[in-house]
Amino acid sequence: MDVKLNERGLLVVISGPSGVGKGTIRKALFEMPDNNFCYSVSMTTRKPREGEVDGVDYFFVSREEFERRIKQKQFLEYAEFVGEYYGTPLEYVEKKLSEGKEVIIEIEVQGALQVREKMPEAVFVFIVPPSKQVLYDRLMKRGTEQTKDIEKRIDKAEREYHLAYKYDYIVVNDDVYNAADRIYAIIRAEHAKTERSIHMYTKLMEGKVNGKQKH
Amino acid sequence: MDVKLNERGLLVVISGPSGVGKGTIRKALFEMPDNNFCYSVSMTTRKPREGEVDGVDYFFVSREEFERRIKQKQFLEYAEFVGEYYGTPLEYVEKKLSEGKEVIIEIEVQGALQVREKMPEAVFVFIVPPSKQVLYDRLMKRGTEQTKDIEKRIDKAEREYHLAYKYDYIVVNDDVYNAADRIYAIIRAEHAKTERSIHMYTKLMEGKVNGKQKH
Repeated sequence: MDVKLNERGLLVVISGPSGVGKGTIRKALFEMPDNNFCYSVSMTTRKPREGEVDGVDYFFVSREEFERRIKQKQFLEYAEFVGEYYGTPLEYVEKKLSEGKEVIIEIEVQGALQVREKMPEAVFVFIVPPSKQVLYDRLMKRGTEQTKDIEKRIDKAEREYHLAYKYDYIVVNDDVYNAADRIYAIIRAEHAKTERSIHMYTKLMEGKVNGKQKH
Repeated sequence: MDVKLNERGLLVVISGPSGVGKGTIRKALFEMPDNNFCYSVSMTTRKPREGEVDGVDYFFVSREEFERRIKQKQFLEYAEFVGEYYGTPLEYVEKKLSEGKEVIIEIEVQGALQVREKMPEAVFVFIVPPSKQVLYDRLMKRGTEQTKDIEKRIDKAEREYHLAYKYDYIVVNDDVYNAADRIYAIIRAEHAKTERSIHMYTKLMEGKVNGKQKH
């Protein structure tokens, strides 16, 4: 049996300014062969966009339902943005981590900073555009929203791109597959970090397990 | 022109108990396609083993020459082991790092801890065997040395394998190519670390460079 030096999965938080391409990178990550990733589906009160599927892209719930869950502390993080709630259900994340899965969450900056407080051992990746112009172009082209909403998103991106320093890693979205590859490298490296692997290594040297590093 | 978020190369210190396979892993790293690695050739006073080439495997120098260089502070680290000196010439390492090359050094534990003091920004990787028995078997099979030397090496390995906690990463040498792959992932991840990349990212957002992340 293979034994990892770090058996517990990692919580990987992918965040960055609106419009930077977080969702596309997340999808590219999940297309990687032999991955052990598990996507934490967020919950939201916003209406589904065309093609979005309940339970796959988001859990779509009512405002009342969302607020009931906030009161019951069922979220790892949640945020209100452009009048709608978005949140990460906590129980599912914990279960998958203990099963040794890497749980990938893709969230707004506001939510990521809440996760930092609750789970400092998570890995925080800030996705950045190759230039500010690229970001603005993407926000303008997203034709699904009204001008007012686009302006709000630009204002928010403007504030958010300064928050990179609060993250562990900065990954440029120059190309979606390059960016996903870099995140995969980060996950492998984090598993090999001494603070995560020394416990199992010590057991290995005492002959209590047969060791093979998965990552 | 491509611009890295971290332009300076990394000093990667590969270390671990004697007999763990550091040299084989280093060679596998250098066989990787499109690598930007540069090997820092160590200097030693020990006699060349069969097939070893001066200036490739080591710079072989006399004891007098080595001690003169110690006095002139020309080493990033040096150590005496089984009656022979081993050291890393400093000037070459600095030059290659500023050219943006990743400098890989493969050294004994004693030397690695000296580098930690002089260059704390380096990346420290501790190679470990999949079990203690594997390590002993390797040390016994290395037929180039006398029994007395093998015993000394085993004693040393016994003390050294407890020092993993002083390193940034622990990599199991279960398979040489797996181990090299993990080190490559560590190098990519380290370049994306916020503390190494935020300076260039800030410039990127101010429109001073066109950004593309190499790693």
